[in-house]
Amino acid sequence: MTTEVFVPKIPYGTRDLLQGDANRKRNIEAALGKLFASWGYDEVVTPTIEYLETLSVGNATDLQHNMFKFFDKSNRILALRPDMTTPIARVAATRLRERALPLKLFYLTNVFRYEEAQAGRQCEFYQAGIELLGVSDPTADAEVIAIAVEAMLEAGLTSFQVSLGQVEFIHGIMNECGLPLTQQQAVKQSLVKRDLVGMGEILQNSGLCPTAQKILTQVPVLHGRQDMLKQAYDMVTNQTSRNALDNLSEIYNILVSYGVDKYVNFDLGIIRDFEYYTGMVFEGYTPGLGFPLCGGGRYDKMVSSFGVDCPATGFALGIERILLAMERQGIAISPDSKDIYIGWNKGMFDAAIVEASQQRRAGKTVELAFKPQSQLEAATSQVAKGYNKLTYIGG
Amino acid sequence: MTTEVFVPKIPYGTRDLLQGDANRKRNIEAALGKLFASWGYDEVVTPTIEYLETLSVGNATDLQHNMFKFFDKSNRILALRPDMTTPIARVAATRLRERALPLKLFYLTNVFRYEEAQAGRQCEFYQAGIELLGVSDPTADAEVIAIAVEAMLEAGLTSFQVSLGQVEFIHGIMNECGLPLTQQQAVKQSLVKRDLVGMGEILQNSGLCPTAQKILTQVPVLHGRQDMLKQAYDMVTNQTSRNALDNLSEIYNILVSYGVDKYVNFDLGIIRDFEYYTGMVFEGYTPGLGFPLCGGGRYDKMVSSFGVDCPATGFALGIERILLAMERQGIAISPDSKDIYIGWNKGMFDAAIVEASQQRRAGKTVELAFKPQSQLEAATSQVAKGYNKLTYIGG
Repeated sequence: MTTEVFVPKIPYGTRDLLQGDANRKRNIEAALGKLFASWGYDEVVTPTIEYLETLSVGNATDLQHNMFKFFDKSNRILALRPDMTTPIARVAATRLRERALPLKLFYLTNVFRYEEAQAGRQCEFYQAGIELLGVSDPTADAEVIAIAVEAMLEAGLTSFQVSLGQVEFIHGIMNECGLPLTQQQAVKQSLVKRDLVGMGEILQNSGLCPTAQKILTQVPVLHGRQDMLKQAYDMVTNQTSRNALDNLSEIYNILVSYGVDKYVNFDLGIIRDFEYYTGMVFEGYTPGLGFPLCGGGRYDKMVSSFGVDCPATGFALGIERILLAMERQGIAISPDSKDIYIGWNKGMFDAAIVEASQQRRAGKTVELAFKPQSQLEAATSQVAKGYNKLTYIGG
Repeated sequence: MTTEVFVPKIPYGTRDLLQGDANRKRNIEAALGKLFASWGYDEVVTPTIEYLETLSVGNATDLQHNMFKFFDKSNRILALRPDMTTPIARVAATRLRERALPLKLFYLTNVFRYEEAQAGRQCEFYQAGIELLGVSDPTADAEVIAIAVEAMLEAGLTSFQVSLGQVEFIHGIMNECGLPLTQQQAVKQSLVKRDLVGMGEILQNSGLCPTAQKILTQVPVLHGRQDMLKQAYDMVTNQTSRNALDNLSEIYNILVSYGVDKYVNFDLGIIRDFEYYTGMVFEGYTPGLGFPLCGGGRYDKMVSSFGVDCPATGFALGIERILLAMERQGIAISPDSKDIYIGWNKGMFDAAIVEASQQRRAGKTVELAFKPQSQLEAATSQVAKGYNKLTYIGG
């Protein structure tokens, strides 16, 4: 007779983080939490589940399609949060109205999206991020970018670049020609996907004036340093686009003062795939990773959807992506050490307990055997369990 | 014209943890993570979502009814984990087969249950806990209980008691009389609910011999210290119940060696509402809280449902319950301090950035103003934002 054994699997796009990985994740999160706090940010914890209605504010239909949705007992639609920006905007609008602005908030949590899973891209993943609410000045955007740079340095990365864009640059060009909103969104979608062929077709059929078409075709290659901003400035004539470029210059000058400009360049093709962005946007890249480590930007209209007018800017960083980048770049982050394994001879358990307690109080990691062992057995256990030192209480 | 404003709510039984609360939660979790690690436990992070089939292993139908369930894109039933014991048993059975036993694992995470929400009882709540797999000796149960005591002390509580029970005590009585399993479960349910009237009716209609009925009626009052164990020993004649009491004595003697016996008493009426327990069970109580702060016990059969035979014991502690107990007991845990607010006069932003960076590097929490301010405005901001000190860069 064979008993049927249930071999459990875990859902698509999820994973278990065991020992070393979980430890590295915790240490990076602790370091990032400390960093955000040192800049005056307070942590916020929001429910994992929100009403779909709430999470749909400011989010593209695309993203709504990718949410984990279900019904509550009153048949209202709930969803697992796909990001933390919308929940924090909700909190700011409802719970924090009376507080002194600016509000500086951070989070370290998991978010959920149905996506094609691959290394660094899971359906449940962990983010660290900040939201800065109540300030429209470029000083706020510069602070957010400076913290993003500090966060990547804090996590242990050394080789990375933050690319700045400004969504108003292309809005200005499209508005000037009176391109209808749906067509604008199609153009933006093709930019997000870096789908140059698709964009060419969309532009040709858009009825845009040839000058605008030509500029938009060039947007994906408008990346570089400050001289590129000057080049772009001369390409456009509308004030919105020019203000966007001036805004990027202002932010950049503050980043020079922060001493992080060597990590920063410009890329006007960065649009980001959340529709709520209204100004500066940015993404952080590192060699060996085909997707951004972090991203963020300004979203001045989202909080007002919840009834309170409030400019805002922020960013989020992928914890697993940091871990993956470090692994691929050969940057060692060893998990916390295991200090002492305590074995004991028959009749010596009480003495072993005293020894274990003393060592733990002294800050050591201690595993105490659960059964009497010979010294050889204890030494074998010490090695098998990865402890640096053996203490044997032999009596 | 009035614009329609969307006033967002959050789902039943969930809440936002803002500033001080989130900070206290993080600090308690960090302290508990460090405590568990010092006893040689490794963190495990599992998916928030699991297949219902997995989560149903070892869990009562009651609990299955209380899970948040939904379908994945292939129409399989997923659920949000209602506890961490089952997911960790799954991990142990599938991913950790090759590792040296015992396995010592900890977690700090959220779990989900549809429940009637009240203070300290939410539908999404946070747990810290450990699972110790591979040891059937009472040394393992004693370690788990000792860590539970240390965890409550570490969190800042001083006044609490851990009550130990043993599910085999009543199993022995019911088996001796040949009470059918369904009736046994009904008796256990009434014990869990402390429903003495209900239990009386169930016993009367059970066909149990009068002696067994009499003992079971007394179970809810079998609490106290070691003399109660002796009293209970004399009440029963079957070996299973007597072994259960011997097991409790053995565990207690080790807790004396650990120096935590003053926090420990016995309560044979403790059954716990998870059906997977097979031996020692315990709950931790503190004045002013009508439900346990923590609970756990031995579950030697659950891992084998996943195909690997493995005894196990563990416990979980409610983070929000700790915070609530401390609040009700007037134990102050102040959130991390806010050190310096830096205001600056027009043209002095660069100097202010330098000052802020220096102070942050020195470990201070620093908020830097986003706009030029007069010294008076800066002082007002400092107070409004709760910073201890003002630095004004006036030039």
